[in-house]
Amino acid sequence: MTKQFLLFLLFISSLAFADDGSRLWLNYVLIKEAKQREGYGPFTKFIAVSSEGQTLKIASNELQMGLQGLLGKKITIVKTATASGGIVLSVNKSADVSEEGYKIYTEKGNIVISSNTETGVLYGTFELLRAMQTGKSLANISITENPKVKIRMLNHWDNANGTVERGYAGSSMWKWNELPYRIDPRYVMYARANASIGINATSINNVNASSRFLTAEYLEKIKAVADVLRPYGIKVFISVNFRSPRTLGGLKTSDPLDPEVRKWWNDKTKEIHQYIPDFGGYLVKANSEGEPGPQDYGRTHADGANMLAEAMRPFSGIVIWRAFVYNADPNGDRFKEGYAQFKPLDGAFDPKVIVQVKNGPIDFMPREPFHPMFGAFPKTPLGMEFQITQEYLGQSTHLTYLAPMFKECLDTDTYAKGQGSTVAKVIDGSLYNASNSLMAGVANTGSDDNWCGHPFNQSNWYAFGRLAWDHTLSSEQIASEWIQMTLTRSKPAEQKINDIMMRSHPIYVSYTYPLGTAHMMGESHHYGPEPWLAKSARPDWTSVYYHRADSVGLGFDRTGKLSNALQLYSPEVQKKWGNPDQCPLDYLLWFHHVPWGKKLSTGRSLWDELCVRYYDGVVQVGNLQKTWESTKTAIDPEIFENVKGRLKIQEKEALWWRDACVLYFGEYSKMPIPKPLTPPQRTLNEVKKLVEIYHLR
Amino acid sequence: MTKQFLLFLLFISSLAFADDGSRLWLNYVLIKEAKQREGYGPFTKFIAVSSEGQTLKIASNELQMGLQGLLGKKITIVKTATASGGIVLSVNKSADVSEEGYKIYTEKGNIVISSNTETGVLYGTFELLRAMQTGKSLANISITENPKVKIRMLNHWDNANGTVERGYAGSSMWKWNELPYRIDPRYVMYARANASIGINATSINNVNASSRFLTAEYLEKIKAVADVLRPYGIKVFISVNFRSPRTLGGLKTSDPLDPEVRKWWNDKTKEIHQYIPDFGGYLVKANSEGEPGPQDYGRTHADGANMLAEAMRPFSGIVIWRAFVYNADPNGDRFKEGYAQFKPLDGAFDPKVIVQVKNGPIDFMPREPFHPMFGAFPKTPLGMEFQITQEYLGQSTHLTYLAPMFKECLDTDTYAKGQGSTVAKVIDGSLYNASNSLMAGVANTGSDDNWCGHPFNQSNWYAFGRLAWDHTLSSEQIASEWIQMTLTRSKPAEQKINDIMMRSHPIYVSYTYPLGTAHMMGESHHYGPEPWLAKSARPDWTSVYYHRADSVGLGFDRTGKLSNALQLYSPEVQKKWGNPDQCPLDYLLWFHHVPWGKKLSTGRSLWDELCVRYYDGVVQVGNLQKTWESTKTAIDPEIFENVKGRLKIQEKEALWWRDACVLYFGEYSKMPIPKPLTPPQRTLNEVKKLVEIYHLR
Repeated sequence: MTKQFLLFLLFISSLAFADDGSRLWLNYVLIKEAKQREGYGPFTKFIAVSSEGQTLKIASNELQMGLQGLLGKKITIVKTATASGGIVLSVNKSADVSEEGYKIYTEKGNIVISSNTETGVLYGTFELLRAMQTGKSLANISITENPKVKIRMLNHWDNANGTVERGYAGSSMWKWNELPYRIDPRYVMYARANASIGINATSINNVNASSRFLTAEYLEKIKAVADVLRPYGIKVFISVNFRSPRTLGGLKTSDPLDPEVRKWWNDKTKEIHQYIPDFGGYLVKANSEGEPGPQDYGRTHADGANMLAEAMRPFSGIVIWRAFVYNADPNGDRFKEGYAQFKPLDGAFDPKVIVQVKNGPIDFMPREPFHPMFGAFPKTPLGMEFQITQEYLGQSTHLTYLAPMFKECLDTDTYAKGQGSTVAKVIDGSLYNASNSLMAGVANTGSDDNWCGHPFNQSNWYAFGRLAWDHTLSSEQIASEWIQMTLTRSKPAEQKINDIMMRSHPIYVSYTYPLGTAHMMGESHHYGPEPWLAKSARPDWTSVYYHRADSVGLGFDRTGKLSNALQLYSPEVQKKWGNPDQCPLDYLLWFHHVPWGKKLSTGRSLWDELCVRYYDGVVQVGNLQKTWESTKTAIDPEIFENVKGRLKIQEKEALWWRDACVLYFGEYSKMPIPKPLTPPQRTLNEVKKLVEIYHLR
Repeated sequence: MTKQFLLFLLFISSLAFADDGSRLWLNYVLIKEAKQREGYGPFTKFIAVSSEGQTLKIASNELQMGLQGLLGKKITIVKTATASGGIVLSVNKSADVSEEGYKIYTEKGNIVISSNTETGVLYGTFELLRAMQTGKSLANISITENPKVKIRMLNHWDNANGTVERGYAGSSMWKWNELPYRIDPRYVMYARANASIGINATSINNVNASSRFLTAEYLEKIKAVADVLRPYGIKVFISVNFRSPRTLGGLKTSDPLDPEVRKWWNDKTKEIHQYIPDFGGYLVKANSEGEPGPQDYGRTHADGANMLAEAMRPFSGIVIWRAFVYNADPNGDRFKEGYAQFKPLDGAFDPKVIVQVKNGPIDFMPREPFHPMFGAFPKTPLGMEFQITQEYLGQSTHLTYLAPMFKECLDTDTYAKGQGSTVAKVIDGSLYNASNSLMAGVANTGSDDNWCGHPFNQSNWYAFGRLAWDHTLSSEQIASEWIQMTLTRSKPAEQKINDIMMRSHPIYVSYTYPLGTAHMMGESHHYGPEPWLAKSARPDWTSVYYHRADSVGLGFDRTGKLSNALQLYSPEVQKKWGNPDQCPLDYLLWFHHVPWGKKLSTGRSLWDELCVRYYDGVVQVGNLQKTWESTKTAIDPEIFENVKGRLKIQEKEALWWRDACVLYFGEYSKMPIPKPLTPPQRTLNEVKKLVEIYHLR
């Protein structure tokens, strides 16, 4: 190495030292402990890959790049293992793993990553890298992995104009104006990140869909994206606008039973496959929030979905039909809408259709009971729709680790086929032997350097992928992996950050939606508190529709008097949540209108408990800050300051939520803030004025 | 250096090698030629800076960082120069440069950068670095520089919700949700980049302004930004909504003559100064495109501006009032509106007011005649408003270097006080001895890694700043600087790229708006061609309003019959443009309705000339691609591919413009595409269908 080159390196390294987060959990920084690096030496003498397949080439290159980073040495790639001590990537038809599953084991002194498919080998490669990133020993490594869910998918709510609906990390990562001729290198990083956690599908546009994505002009662009993602095992889906036969085809109707409409979709589907032969399929939001759909023509969701399924019949793709539907009825209960519209259709859907259901019956609230559709559809594969982007969960300024929330839903027992009929078993298809299975997450990716805005938001993308692969993983383990791969390998720091992450969701719920309250956020932008919101374009877009505060008490009675929503669940679930004296406090106000003075299991009245939780949430954010401060020496300085600044904002806004809610509800309870808590330093009107700012154009 | 550290460096360098463009023209890569580096050795032995001022510290750190990059060695910073061969940064009250001017000269064997102010020294520091970045010798260096314009400003059209009006590089760079507690490191890079080209002011929000920027909540955020920018010599301005006294103050009126309204603005202005003591001032878009203004109360622009000026009287700040106003009148001529509304007010404005005028009378068209207000306002300082963001100039997909367009306007003679009364002399205040002067550019910055989307869009930010400092610089010189600082120091490549840049604007005009046509772009998004647009919310938002194509000919007659707009100019200018036989072809259809068959100075009929120019524009884009291809070895691979891809899109879209326009105008001219040109391969309806795609939601 010449001195000149060395100086050059020194300079470049000084520029590159601050971690901008762009490499996500694949940053592959050098393992500091020489001993640990040396421990990997005997297993990393070469990489052997016999086939010329594109995906295997990607796997071997990823391994080479990862090892160069982690161990600081360049490992040679060879065609055949002629010695021991290397890593062998091998596609072998073997009956004991699924198509995408893989095994990692030791044979003849080599570590073998084996799968039926190249994609499985790629997944195993990332697993091996993860083992080293998290300090695992490779001696006698023996891993067998099969994904529990078949379609592990991101849903992008990205618009054609470059904005992202509910996106908090810059603009869309898809540069439609540049495609198909310019391929942003970020598409490759995106593919690597997804493959590393087993995500194998992506819908690239908003479910509030523009027809333009079905034009030849745009199919050419989508093809260019699909070509980048394909070797990483990722299939592309398109969200479609149900009115497209009219908008694009010039037809007079989009009635799914109209022969011309059916022909239009058949032709369009064939056309798409000329661009993307392995097209994943359609994702459809129909007759929901103003979107067109089959009901516009007196047809059912099944009529609509089956028409698209018919168009897809010659191909491998499928149709994902969303169950997020609700009509504006001031006397109804939005909680019941999806169930009511879809339950009669169980059994009516084409086998190519999966119905995609949000985790809860309302809309991604920080804590919702599981959607009553789960368990209630023995003849229809139901897919899970989680929201990774934090529309109601702090957007890009609050640290909220979502794995515990995802797990809480997945692990809940529906009792649909007796005890143990968890939501997870509905989703992975095992409860009703479904032919297909799906877990989708609404993506939190954007054009920001670090992809997700808040550095910790990356962990929710990571956790979603890991849980879609294996919903039995624990939240702690997933957090531990992500921290070590992304932030620090210092054990004490890792434990502190793990603790921050595990506490973060309960804390967020505490200062925003304690005791089972819901939907009290700022109108339209969904930022900050607005529990007093009483007028909107629809009654079920207000806050008062949900919290039902009055002089008597707080909460939505869903036990039969006002709404019988609880009856949609199994008797066992009804029993668990139906009695206000026994209902877990976290779910209490979802199902019961509880008097302000009623004594809860904590020994406090509802009002006092509400105040205590709001106040404690704020205090806990202070504690998160202190814990974060104690990790300083173990964290990249830029990321440390970034998170520190955001935690300070979180504290300010937690106080904002607390004051807004206790002052507002206090007008109904007529009770004082319980001692020793100090009443807010501002009036309700002052808080309302603050909230108004965010409605000014 | 330990081996371990060396390995680490190697890895980091491999990651950092691809240039993501984030460092703009301050990338300071090592000078490859050892001889050149050695040539700088005798002048770079130390950096001496005696004062502790924050700006001087920034200057010395920038110099140290720059030299480390360029020369690959760390230069020590000392307090006093005790030897020769170093660089001395020195604040000295000296009469022969202006407050922000500087001198660089050799004294006692040292290079001295001297100014009356720390900011001047910082500017000189960047000049010295630029000298090295562009390969100049430092022996006997002797430079004296004074800015020609006092306020050199960026106008951000950034909205509070994170979008950017007419932004094509991601979302807003201002992270309002993170401020004031998180300071994005990009704010510092932004400050450095601006200081390096002498920009000393920035308005941080859209002129279609939200009142929220005047709330205490937001002033705290803006203060945090101002605190970052201040040591770089940059003052912060706020765009204000004229209705704020009503919206925020709860008053019943915003009438500028109402005492309560005046008091509200006085108080608000005082409040702002508590956050930002050196607040730059207000930027106002009033009674324009639906924005509120003094005319809502029967008052004049001067009434409105003077009210704000009064509020600003105790402070150093000013009021910038935009002249971009026009009423919807199907029988009028938008060309005359700004002049008509403002001319009677010349002399009526408070000395603290500058009227900011767009370069042309319509709206940032690719080529416009200079605005007739320039030269016509002896008693009012007029500021220039250029648009750096390429709303009508290819957005982020066409390579269009704007310095020649800026210069074309600045260098045009208004003849207001006889020959030599150029627009530039109006702007720099010299023509009428104005007390203040302003050049503003609507920013093209966004959250994208490389700030501006298209890598070459950076050059327009750079060129704007350089011309605001010194409008006598040539476009070629500015391009040469930018290329060497940003892309390559290879002389042959620099010359080729300079050629690409210098040809780019004429080529863009050729395939979009040849011969003085204007305003024929896609409705609202302003992307692609839509010359057939005949209906809109306002007549002056259509295309037909501007091109006036009919069976006789093409162009807007502004010589007196239909509109007398030409009479707003000096007699000499009228003479130059008033005769269709002598009017330069580039401006012809701005002023004349020319018969399709009329023979032009080129020897061709109008129709043939129009076709030839459209066709030639497309051919020339092909030539740009070939030239770019020949620079491959001298360019960072990622940037090379990026530009290559975009040029391919540009060619496709140039063809789109060409076909749209010749097919559409052909319906009026009834003439064939002249030989040897080949008629378009598609029909007008096909092109219209293509354009419709961009109107689909």
